[in-house]
Amino acid sequence: MRIGVLTGGGDCPGLNPAIRAIVYRGIDFADEIIGIPLGWKGMLEGEGKELNLKDVEEIISQGGTILGTSRTNPYKMEGGPQKVLDSLLSLKLDALIAIGGEDTLGVASRLYGDFKVRVVGVPKTMDNDLSETDFTFGFDTASTTSMEALERLRDTAKSHRRIMVLEVMGRHAGWVALYTALGGGADAVLLPEVPVNLEELSKSILKHHQRKGYGLVVVSEGIEITATTDSAQNEVDSFGHIILGKRAAGAYIAKELEKRTKLETRSVQIGHIQRGGPPTLFDRVLGTLVGIKAIDLVHEEKFGYMASYKDGKVTEVPLEAATKEIKKVYATWLKLLPVLFKK
Amino acid sequence: MRIGVLTGGGDCPGLNPAIRAIVYRGIDFADEIIGIPLGWKGMLEGEGKELNLKDVEEIISQGGTILGTSRTNPYKMEGGPQKVLDSLLSLKLDALIAIGGEDTLGVASRLYGDFKVRVVGVPKTMDNDLSETDFTFGFDTASTTSMEALERLRDTAKSHRRIMVLEVMGRHAGWVALYTALGGGADAVLLPEVPVNLEELSKSILKHHQRKGYGLVVVSEGIEITATTDSAQNEVDSFGHIILGKRAAGAYIAKELEKRTKLETRSVQIGHIQRGGPPTLFDRVLGTLVGIKAIDLVHEEKFGYMASYKDGKVTEVPLEAATKEIKKVYATWLKLLPVLFKK
Amino acid sequence: MRIGVLTGGGDCPGLNPAIRAIVYRGIDFADEIIGIPLGWKGMLEGEGKELNLKDVEEIISQGGTILGTSRTNPYKMEGGPQKVLDSLLSLKLDALIAIGGEDTLGVASRLYGDFKVRVVGVPKTMDNDLSETDFTFGFDTASTTSMEALERLRDTAKSHRRIMVLEVMGRHAGWVALYTALGGGADAVLLPEVPVNLEELSKSILKHHQRKGYGLVVVSEGIEITATTDSAQNEVDSFGHIILGKRAAGAYIAKELEKRTKLETRSVQIGHIQRGGPPTLFDRVLGTLVGIKAIDLVHEEKFGYMASYKDGKVTEVPLEAATKEIKKVYATWLKLLPVLFKK
Amino acid sequence: MRIGVLTGGGDCPGLNPAIRAIVYRGIDFADEIIGIPLGWKGMLEGEGKELNLKDVEEIISQGGTILGTSRTNPYKMEGGPQKVLDSLLSLKLDALIAIGGEDTLGVASRLYGDFKVRVVGVPKTMDNDLSETDFTFGFDTASTTSMEALERLRDTAKSHRRIMVLEVMGRHAGWVALYTALGGGADAVLLPEVPVNLEELSKSILKHHQRKGYGLVVVSEGIEITATTDSAQNEVDSFGHIILGKRAAGAYIAKELEKRTKLETRSVQIGHIQRGGPPTLFDRVLGTLVGIKAIDLVHEEKFGYMASYKDGKVTEVPLEAATKEIKKVYATWLKLLPVLFKK
Repeated sequence: MRIGVLTGGGDCPGLNPAIRAIVYRGIDFADEIIGIPLGWKGMLEGEGKELNLKDVEEIISQGGTILGTSRTNPYKMEGGPQKVLDSLLSLKLDALIAIGGEDTLGVASRLYGDFKVRVVGVPKTMDNDLSETDFTFGFDTASTTSMEALERLRDTAKSHRRIMVLEVMGRHAGWVALYTALGGGADAVLLPEVPVNLEELSKSILKHHQRKGYGLVVVSEGIEITATTDSAQNEVDSFGHIILGKRAAGAYIAKELEKRTKLETRSVQIGHIQRGGPPTLFDRVLGTLVGIKAIDLVHEEKFGYMASYKDGKVTEVPLEAATKEIKKVYATWLKLLPVLFKK
Repeated sequence: MRIGVLTGGGDCPGLNPAIRAIVYRGIDFADEIIGIPLGWKGMLEGEGKELNLKDVEEIISQGGTILGTSRTNPYKMEGGPQKVLDSLLSLKLDALIAIGGEDTLGVASRLYGDFKVRVVGVPKTMDNDLSETDFTFGFDTASTTSMEALERLRDTAKSHRRIMVLEVMGRHAGWVALYTALGGGADAVLLPEVPVNLEELSKSILKHHQRKGYGLVVVSEGIEITATTDSAQNEVDSFGHIILGKRAAGAYIAKELEKRTKLETRSVQIGHIQRGGPPTLFDRVLGTLVGIKAIDLVHEEKFGYMASYKDGKVTEVPLEAATKEIKKVYATWLKLLPVLFKK
Repeated sequence: MRIGVLTGGGDCPGLNPAIRAIVYRGIDFADEIIGIPLGWKGMLEGEGKELNLKDVEEIISQGGTILGTSRTNPYKMEGGPQKVLDSLLSLKLDALIAIGGEDTLGVASRLYGDFKVRVVGVPKTMDNDLSETDFTFGFDTASTTSMEALERLRDTAKSHRRIMVLEVMGRHAGWVALYTALGGGADAVLLPEVPVNLEELSKSILKHHQRKGYGLVVVSEGIEITATTDSAQNEVDSFGHIILGKRAAGAYIAKELEKRTKLETRSVQIGHIQRGGPPTLFDRVLGTLVGIKAIDLVHEEKFGYMASYKDGKVTEVPLEAATKEIKKVYATWLKLLPVLFKK
Repeated sequence: MRIGVLTGGGDCPGLNPAIRAIVYRGIDFADEIIGIPLGWKGMLEGEGKELNLKDVEEIISQGGTILGTSRTNPYKMEGGPQKVLDSLLSLKLDALIAIGGEDTLGVASRLYGDFKVRVVGVPKTMDNDLSETDFTFGFDTASTTSMEALERLRDTAKSHRRIMVLEVMGRHAGWVALYTALGGGADAVLLPEVPVNLEELSKSILKHHQRKGYGLVVVSEGIEITATTDSAQNEVDSFGHIILGKRAAGAYIAKELEKRTKLETRSVQIGHIQRGGPPTLFDRVLGTLVGIKAIDLVHEEKFGYMASYKDGKVTEVPLEAATKEIKKVYATWLKLLPVLFKK
């Protein structure tokens, strides 16, 4: 078979292991694997180039994606889907593997629903907020990177008797913040899933500071704050939520904490540093397993499905189910928050 | 409740996160947590010291165990079990949490079976060969360490156009070798679960060397080699298996490979370097979850059980089942070997 | 002798190795080493506690300072210097070792000049901008941290065909930016020592992007931009320099680059993440050598001097000379900029 | 000019930064840089390929050498030097840059002395034992790698109350062992420069163990042991020195220590793991500076010289002086051993 593969959305570690596994598994079936550059943008433009063993055998340790990526969405442009269909023909593809998150796989799901495009999905998001899969590659590496950043902040916090606030990625779900805070031993964590109570947070941090002379707080970029607890000059939306400026959650929390606790407080936003770097072992294994599974799904003609890691096993789930809604931090985890952080 | 906690067997990263979680969760129940030094040795000698928040709040990033460990087994000494019973009384323990691998938990299982000792187990082995749990903490860190060592060897292998052989831990199961080889992109892996065929291995490595100018092989310390494929002067056991000297598997394979391929070949044994270091995020999370679960099991009076991570979830399993036999590399993984390594 | 030791100013990796070496070398002379908490603040308040082998033997790998630090300056408060003199008496100190940068050592220099205080200095600044010493500990670690961050940004830049801008520390001198850019293989670097020419920078980055599809720029937080090259709404000072907001240099450059090149551009500010973490080997060795030297200087009664690493050797220099002016990036380095970055 | 460049001897981190810098600096002079594969082997066979910006712009972070290396020595084969002369002509080289250690540069020195070959040297050895240069690239990375291995061993040593012995590279000089032990906070270090006294070592380690419950020893592979202190069955040479087997120094010391102290002792040999990996910042900067200098020396027609880093500055020294004898650990360092390790 002649199978296209593309990577869409924000890059993250694990994409290259997945691409490599697709080529490796393809060899077993004597498939031709065609790399599509820059996500759906490449499909719109009908570009592609064969990927061989030589191209991928040393990429398992590399962050990013050798195919390039973009946020281009064919459904957001005039005649987009039709262009994709045309490219499938012009590139002579028997099937297409789309590696991406909610948006990229959402396109795949619709192409399958609308035109029965022979497409299989591979889940990817460092935010870990894709449904129907326990983990997505990129998440372990990204959380490890911010955990290590938090450990660096601990040195400074202790030396200066300070509160340090680290803002990490996670616009809709708090997975990265949760794992960063757990692994780095933070004193508090703020997630989009839990309303922020600045009074309670300040009291908790004061207690930690009294005991050990410093405090560490991890903040998810996507937290919401209700107007009643606000004392700054932020705009308020119709639900009474404070509208934080673009990526300002950490700085806002630091300012509020300093005001309430009278303790010197600093914030850092890890930003794009969190996206790159060599994938962790976990992400290399996960990327490899779902990559292999994707080729297997193609040969089983399970189109409209996504390779998934569920209940500790590699399996498949319908793309539609996976892209319907965001996977929030589970209730079982939320119950552990007081165990881990409220001491 | 007054709950003892001990760590036995070889140390590995993740023990401290587990101890920390036990103390944290204990606080929720107003438990007194008593740290027993040096595994079962401490129980034989009736030693123990209370562990408080202060003792554990900054240990999540530390390898090893703050309690110390030993390979002492009460069942291997005259009157051992009775001494443990005496110590339970003298230390006034309401329950005991034993953190360890097959040997340490085997003692716990027998103490429960023989004397109904109120004991709960927490699984630990960097070899990942304990049954009834998908993963044990220590494994991800140890495999990450050897994966990074393999990547260092790649630089040298490429520069010198050599074959490099890395011997990693795993006396009875090949988990560490498998993950090291997969994550590090090795060209071949030798596991205790698969008979070694030196002829086939040599041909495969020659093919890799011809294509890219070097080769990387990962060898589990516990491999067995049948006499027919041997050309060295090793002793042979009654099953016709070559008896490799203590930890000589890698050196043996390197020598045989060099002889057969005529390619310059070097071997390295990572040894104890693989045991230490800060736990990975995965091991910190896993250690924390099973630590919390252990305290919960104590309060649910589920004695004779072990906290476990199964099918992607934290649960409990009988200690007896967990310690009955070694968990070998799964058949599903063995089927993937030709996909990953035989290109 | 009874010798006080304090660490002042911003914390950085290498302080603990220096403290450790002071205690180790003190043992050879049977000195009592008194740790003063929180820099000059501790001296103002007359606090101190003996440091023994036990306290320091395992701290060589730790970032920050076990003594704590502050930016308190006795010369900036009523009666400050007198209080320091009083504390020297009340703590019965025969001599004082001050570890710090321009500000902390400036106090030491004045105390020596004004009152002949028996003080010896140890240089520390991650900015590497202290005169009369080739390197200060903290610099190698901080630059390594930002170099690794830059490498992570490369993955994302390549995957998205973007320009990435990394802002690093360095308010007055560009050492950290220079070493980060050199080590991380950046395409351009902006230093406070060299006027920024946005037109030229944009052309250079465009050329890099055309050749390889992405671009990496390192920006020192302390750069100045002249009004003529500005196209944004920043204030302008009386010299015609643009007044960049607190730590906004990277974001400003990214915005200007994107406008001029029409290439997607993102910026990251590494901030406090750069301060912490285990010291590199270089910083452990350097901290150890100047720590030992400080005790030797005390016993040679070379007060008013600072231990220094000059021309590849440990030596001493007058505190006054070391604190007179900032050490800018050398002309020899500036001459190499076109070799390294203008391709 | 048309300039050849080769890398000889054992590979080490820093070679690629040096090659990169040679190409970068060559561009300024419009030089053609010809990469010679596999060290002097490539020169014997007259092979070479132009190196362009594209080939080197992303290699600064890679260990090993993109040119490949070998230990081939033209002076050790019939007609070797003449073949090198022939290749210089057939490849039309105006000059040759040889990057290597004592052996590789020794060839360069003789070729210059015997035939006035227009050759310039660049120093490289992870052992740091080349004369007339303060540091050689590869050393900082190699010592960092073993320092981090030592830190991993500390976790295990503490958990098991053990002595751990780490054997590191350094056949003729103890630089790597010294820096590893200093940076990793070892309790003892054995160097080829200092006769081993097993009795004294055992007493010292016992003292450390009594104080803190474990001990760490770093051993250089090249140590010599005099017969009088030996209690094993090793051969003895005519000077009464024990002849240790190939790379067995660490295991030997561990065995002797265990016998004398009755403390559980384990040894590890880091071996080739120490050679690879991304160069540290220090080695990237050093490799870059001596690479640039090499091209400058060619254009200044300073043949028979080697780029060098001396007294904290880049300069040049005669190849003959640099290759005459090994650079042992300096006396100033030996005097510090009791300060650092005999507590």
